[in-house]
Amino acid sequence: MANCADKSNGKGRGEAQQRRSAPVFDRLFVRVSDTSPICVGLDTVYGYLPEYLKNADMSLEDKLFTFNKEIIDATCDIAACFKLQIACYEAEGLSGLRAFKRTLDYLHETDAIVITDAKRGDISSTAAQYARAHFSGDFESDILTVNPYMGEDAISPYYDYLMEGKGLFVLIKTSNPSAGDFQNQLIEGRPLYEHVAQRVSRWGEEFISHGRFSAIGAVVGCNRAEEFTRIKRLMPNAFFLIPGYGAQGGTGKDVAAFLAEDRNCVVNSSRGIICAHRGKCETENFASCAREAAMEMKRDIMQWLDW
Amino acid sequence: MANCADKSNGKGRGEAQQRRSAPVFDRLFVRVSDTSPICVGLDTVYGYLPEYLKNADMSLEDKLFTFNKEIIDATCDIAACFKLQIACYEAEGLSGLRAFKRTLDYLHETDAIVITDAKRGDISSTAAQYARAHFSGDFESDILTVNPYMGEDAISPYYDYLMEGKGLFVLIKTSNPSAGDFQNQLIEGRPLYEHVAQRVSRWGEEFISHGRFSAIGAVVGCNRAEEFTRIKRLMPNAFFLIPGYGAQGGTGKDVAAFLAEDRNCVVNSSRGIICAHRGKCETENFASCAREAAMEMKRDIMQWLDW
Repeated sequence: MANCADKSNGKGRGEAQQRRSAPVFDRLFVRVSDTSPICVGLDTVYGYLPEYLKNADMSLEDKLFTFNKEIIDATCDIAACFKLQIACYEAEGLSGLRAFKRTLDYLHETDAIVITDAKRGDISSTAAQYARAHFSGDFESDILTVNPYMGEDAISPYYDYLMEGKGLFVLIKTSNPSAGDFQNQLIEGRPLYEHVAQRVSRWGEEFISHGRFSAIGAVVGCNRAEEFTRIKRLMPNAFFLIPGYGAQGGTGKDVAAFLAEDRNCVVNSSRGIICAHRGKCETENFASCAREAAMEMKRDIMQWLDW
Repeated sequence: MANCADKSNGKGRGEAQQRRSAPVFDRLFVRVSDTSPICVGLDTVYGYLPEYLKNADMSLEDKLFTFNKEIIDATCDIAACFKLQIACYEAEGLSGLRAFKRTLDYLHETDAIVITDAKRGDISSTAAQYARAHFSGDFESDILTVNPYMGEDAISPYYDYLMEGKGLFVLIKTSNPSAGDFQNQLIEGRPLYEHVAQRVSRWGEEFISHGRFSAIGAVVGCNRAEEFTRIKRLMPNAFFLIPGYGAQGGTGKDVAAFLAEDRNCVVNSSRGIICAHRGKCETENFASCAREAAMEMKRDIMQWLDW
């Protein structure tokens, strides 16, 4: 199995840090080309752990971190990036958040790009605190997901960090059944999410690197390919995070529709990869199932593409 | 100065726990009647600490907790509730979150009602993790603020906890300058936030206690009194959290307009109270300034009311 820490040539965090000051979506584009569009979702819930780990004589923190480390080692040469769903760690209180921090630290030793999926949505001085929280210190990551409901005040406090290479994925159109409750409401004949897309794209214009990607990207659920085409037109410089593959119902063909023209998307799978061992392998080798699942996902998507 | 821990008659967490299983907005209504509509916002940022604490020989965690404890002791007999802005604690990483937990624990020993202002906005199994995170375990609080952009899937995972006495404040109309970017967009002639209000009110109908308050309340910025009148009509069973007083520009008269007919609101002030000592008192007595500021805020609001 690949060991990601080895992949950064043993030069450790200093060099990784330097690499990370380059615009993150340029780096993500290269990762997608070099590996695949796969984003491994580390939505690590205690119940998902293999039996051997549940029964191991270690702290909850150690168990959660060990699980993540094994998954990362097993998939980092296939995946473009990793996404940590912070809710799963918050739910375990301080133990969970210590495991969250250790996972981020471990990923920072590698080439992998790290997304914290926190969907934070607050404004001004409060959003500035979230920016500090997730772009520096204990919980530093490369990209943060954010919620636009409160308008530009919820996005602008992150701008300073975007100048330093960090990125945002702003929720535009989500993949859940009730996404339409508000996002689909028509305003002057167009759904709210198109207005959000257009506005967010405008905010992102100041943060376009080399004429290519804005540091403000977008989340668009993968069950909405026709909507995606329109959103792409409204956000010509955005990089996209596509949730909804696998356990949430999206297929390789669905996803390929997003990727046909460009490599400016990553496609997240969480349970499809990190739970692949369940009922099959509950031992120290559990992560080989995650690796197989990631490779199968790659095949499932790439068969529809002529990259 | 009042000591809130003493106020629960030394019977500690067991009894407080029992009290807390009663519907939270019924309890909050009583607290507002007994004390005031004031919500003290513990948006605790290191820079706000008085000089003596910054220079004290203690850990960051101890400093942040000591600051909060002093403010709580100084204001708990005036305030209906306390609101912790979790962003400020996340920004200090694990140290900050340990101080956050200790502050929650301290508040749970008292009669005070505790709001975690996290504005979490995610769906289904992820929202269920946020519900566990903030309604049980290390970070348990009484009420959580949440973001409705993803629709009912972002709210329904909390329902089980609402049956057990917990509450939500859902963002409807916020007080920030760019709130209108999306919230004011007209849908069939009415602004988005009115549609959100109506929909959220409908979801809340299942959780109405004694025919009075729904366990799903609402956040409405205090610079929008005329909007509030319409929202109130759309949400007849909601309890309201009103941000925007003081440092954010709202006056006692503005707030009184919300409170004239009923006691179903709490009005938050953060910096106006917790920074009242700055430039005046940087010693162990700093919290007496917080107390004075809270009393002045109470006068400023109550002068317009005939309660």
